[in-house]
Amino acid sequence: MKTKRKDLLGIENLTVDEIELLLSTAESFKEVSAREIKKVPTLRGKTVINLFYEPSTRTRTSFEIAAKRMSADAVNISIASSSAVKGETLKDTARNLEAMKPDAIVIRHSSAGTPEMLSRYVGCSVINAGDGAHEHPSQALLDLLTVKERLGRIEGVRLAIVGDIAHSRVARSNIYGFTKLGASVTVAGPPTMMPPGIERLGCRAAANMTDAIKDADVIMMLRIQLERQDEAFFPSAREYSRLYGLDADKLRTAKKDVIILHPGPVNRGVEISPDVADGPYSLILDQVTNGVAVRMAIFYLLLGASRET
Amino acid sequence: MKTKRKDLLGIENLTVDEIELLLSTAESFKEVSAREIKKVPTLRGKTVINLFYEPSTRTRTSFEIAAKRMSADAVNISIASSSAVKGETLKDTARNLEAMKPDAIVIRHSSAGTPEMLSRYVGCSVINAGDGAHEHPSQALLDLLTVKERLGRIEGVRLAIVGDIAHSRVARSNIYGFTKLGASVTVAGPPTMMPPGIERLGCRAAANMTDAIKDADVIMMLRIQLERQDEAFFPSAREYSRLYGLDADKLRTAKKDVIILHPGPVNRGVEISPDVADGPYSLILDQVTNGVAVRMAIFYLLLGASRET
Amino acid sequence: MKTKRKDLLGIENLTVDEIELLLSTAESFKEVSAREIKKVPTLRGKTVINLFYEPSTRTRTSFEIAAKRMSADAVNISIASSSAVKGETLKDTARNLEAMKPDAIVIRHSSAGTPEMLSRYVGCSVINAGDGAHEHPSQALLDLLTVKERLGRIEGVRLAIVGDIAHSRVARSNIYGFTKLGASVTVAGPPTMMPPGIERLGCRAAANMTDAIKDADVIMMLRIQLERQDEAFFPSAREYSRLYGLDADKLRTAKKDVIILHPGPVNRGVEISPDVADGPYSLILDQVTNGVAVRMAIFYLLLGASRET
Repeated sequence: MKTKRKDLLGIENLTVDEIELLLSTAESFKEVSAREIKKVPTLRGKTVINLFYEPSTRTRTSFEIAAKRMSADAVNISIASSSAVKGETLKDTARNLEAMKPDAIVIRHSSAGTPEMLSRYVGCSVINAGDGAHEHPSQALLDLLTVKERLGRIEGVRLAIVGDIAHSRVARSNIYGFTKLGASVTVAGPPTMMPPGIERLGCRAAANMTDAIKDADVIMMLRIQLERQDEAFFPSAREYSRLYGLDADKLRTAKKDVIILHPGPVNRGVEISPDVADGPYSLILDQVTNGVAVRMAIFYLLLGASRET
Repeated sequence: MKTKRKDLLGIENLTVDEIELLLSTAESFKEVSAREIKKVPTLRGKTVINLFYEPSTRTRTSFEIAAKRMSADAVNISIASSSAVKGETLKDTARNLEAMKPDAIVIRHSSAGTPEMLSRYVGCSVINAGDGAHEHPSQALLDLLTVKERLGRIEGVRLAIVGDIAHSRVARSNIYGFTKLGASVTVAGPPTMMPPGIERLGCRAAANMTDAIKDADVIMMLRIQLERQDEAFFPSAREYSRLYGLDADKLRTAKKDVIILHPGPVNRGVEISPDVADGPYSLILDQVTNGVAVRMAIFYLLLGASRET
Repeated sequence: MKTKRKDLLGIENLTVDEIELLLSTAESFKEVSAREIKKVPTLRGKTVINLFYEPSTRTRTSFEIAAKRMSADAVNISIASSSAVKGETLKDTARNLEAMKPDAIVIRHSSAGTPEMLSRYVGCSVINAGDGAHEHPSQALLDLLTVKERLGRIEGVRLAIVGDIAHSRVARSNIYGFTKLGASVTVAGPPTMMPPGIERLGCRAAANMTDAIKDADVIMMLRIQLERQDEAFFPSAREYSRLYGLDADKLRTAKKDVIILHPGPVNRGVEISPDVADGPYSLILDQVTNGVAVRMAIFYLLLGASRET
């Protein structure tokens, strides 16, 4: 069993079978990172380029560790040291990198659609590590894996996503992923952060946070971009926190065994209070652990599976 | 067969035999990057340090990929994270790095002669990845390989180099390399960018671009440093492009089966028009592919060959 | 024989046996870096994260080379590309990195105590690569190894440390290390750079440099932070050099076979004159070579030894 896809650009275009294959493959790779010797030879001799136009600790590190645990060679290119300073276009960067015969390019960029453009320029696999407010598919896959592990299923699960829905690639990828697999998704956030017509993605827009989380099995809190505050999307961090932050009081209005996700990095005391972030319902660190497994699965299915079938 | 050289500092001092050995070795390594498993164990346990005092995507990435495909360990040091901020001299940096027992240091620096200074300070191999306006030997070798692959020979080939001849390490290394192997080289560029006495390197200075390219088998367009414009080497990018840019009109004055090289990154619409850069005569991406093979050959001949003879 | 320690946070809390085990293990690893194939498979499948909040060429490179020569995977995170720009706390960074299942985190930070905080947050090994003015244990270990190699012993050796004692993590770690192993340590520096009560660490404070070095077997010159000059710790580099710099004149007042150490990078002509730094008594480059061996030993004893006993 394998995928015929060259790229992973988003969740929107994946089939249910493809998502389930990615999740089951990731489950099988989790065991590698728990071993004494955390390495399999599967992708030896493959070259993965991490092309990051936005800074990122955890996503770049997660992809790099995933590549190395699969025995692939990982090469990092960050904007600071890239030819972007020389005014090179994406197209030229893409074709030049491809001419060095990598097997995959992992790209993060502040503009939506950049990974798709890249994928049209190159024959190697392109993996979207986050593009503007568009998609962040590996994040949605690790969220799905985390929920599936804990609840045993995605179908029928009620997911509430709270925060800056309009600008969140995490929200979009998760709305696609969870609804495709039969979950129902409710979103909530300040009016300035709720995109008009969000329901067209298959989710419900709640009037407020309490309404969104009251029947939820899973609450996904989004990171608020404090640096956006001067754009006046919200009056203050304190005001935001009072209305849309998850603390012990609001958690009491949710179901007893609700689980809590956050893509990180957490703004403690803003979108989530420290006691909740570190509390028994939080699966934030499971998400990170699953992130490595999901990225190993992505590399495996795009680069390695064909050799074994 | 092997080289007795410790370093690759430039093309100027290489013998014809050495250049031909580098090219034939590179040809044999091209096949590695075309494999399913792009890796040979030849340089396992060797340490390569990429010491870049100037930013570079493609050259650093190419050396790093070449090292990893030979199974060497590659360690990157860029100016931003280096002790240069603490005022350390090159001599101290060199000796300290050497004390860690690397097998090669790949160095790029804005000052001509820095790699040679470095080579006097250290016993390990030093590879010049570009030093000021002096030399860029791996670039010339990949250009030679690209022409040899396409035309079957270097001897008797007519090469035209167009652009900022005075400030170009690419031009200098290629003038040395092509003339040594029996090609004839003509250079052209704005008067402010033509160094007096360039003929002493064994090439001909043409009066203008049309004269330079009319009999050429190979046209090598140099990258123009737009950031140099305020130094008044040329009046404007548009003016430069009109007189020294390669577009479809000028290409029509060249030979029918001419081939076109550019070291990249390309300023599209300045020194070369997009249709020409992406057209059937352009070998720009072959150059990049050959760059990895040439760098694998450099590592092999400097670090590995002795073991096998 | 092995250590039961999870972390290496400082020399202060190590036992004599532990220090001696680290030194003897490092001695046995020195041979690896002298081989044709500088690599052992001991830590294959282990992941080491180099988390550097301060820039550093040599320490980061030394740890990275040590990890790779042990066949571990090394992942670099520097402040510039880290989530620190997003305001993430150390605690969150720590827990997130740990969730990716590294085996060790090597941390450098400008605040004393940061590695210890980190070690409380994570279950993997934490190695202090320098924290503020607190400790730099791998530096002290490489200094001990260098002296032991040359003099055959540490016990009874007289060490003089000269410079900015108050702000030096190198001084503190070495005072702990040398006194534990039976050496006697004398420190000297400008009054503004001598911490009150330094004798409580087990060393003697000399009135001036001549007094400190006259009976010394080993002189350790500290790097002066020229950038601190505006804090008025010393009047000028020239004044500092005259009173506390080691030059040929001052060296004549020391013992004939004295050996000289410096942690690097050297301010030539400030704390040490070029002829002395490069002279026959200087072991500065041996220190760097031993640094790789010491770090291989640290990785081995923290990550690998348990598997073999």
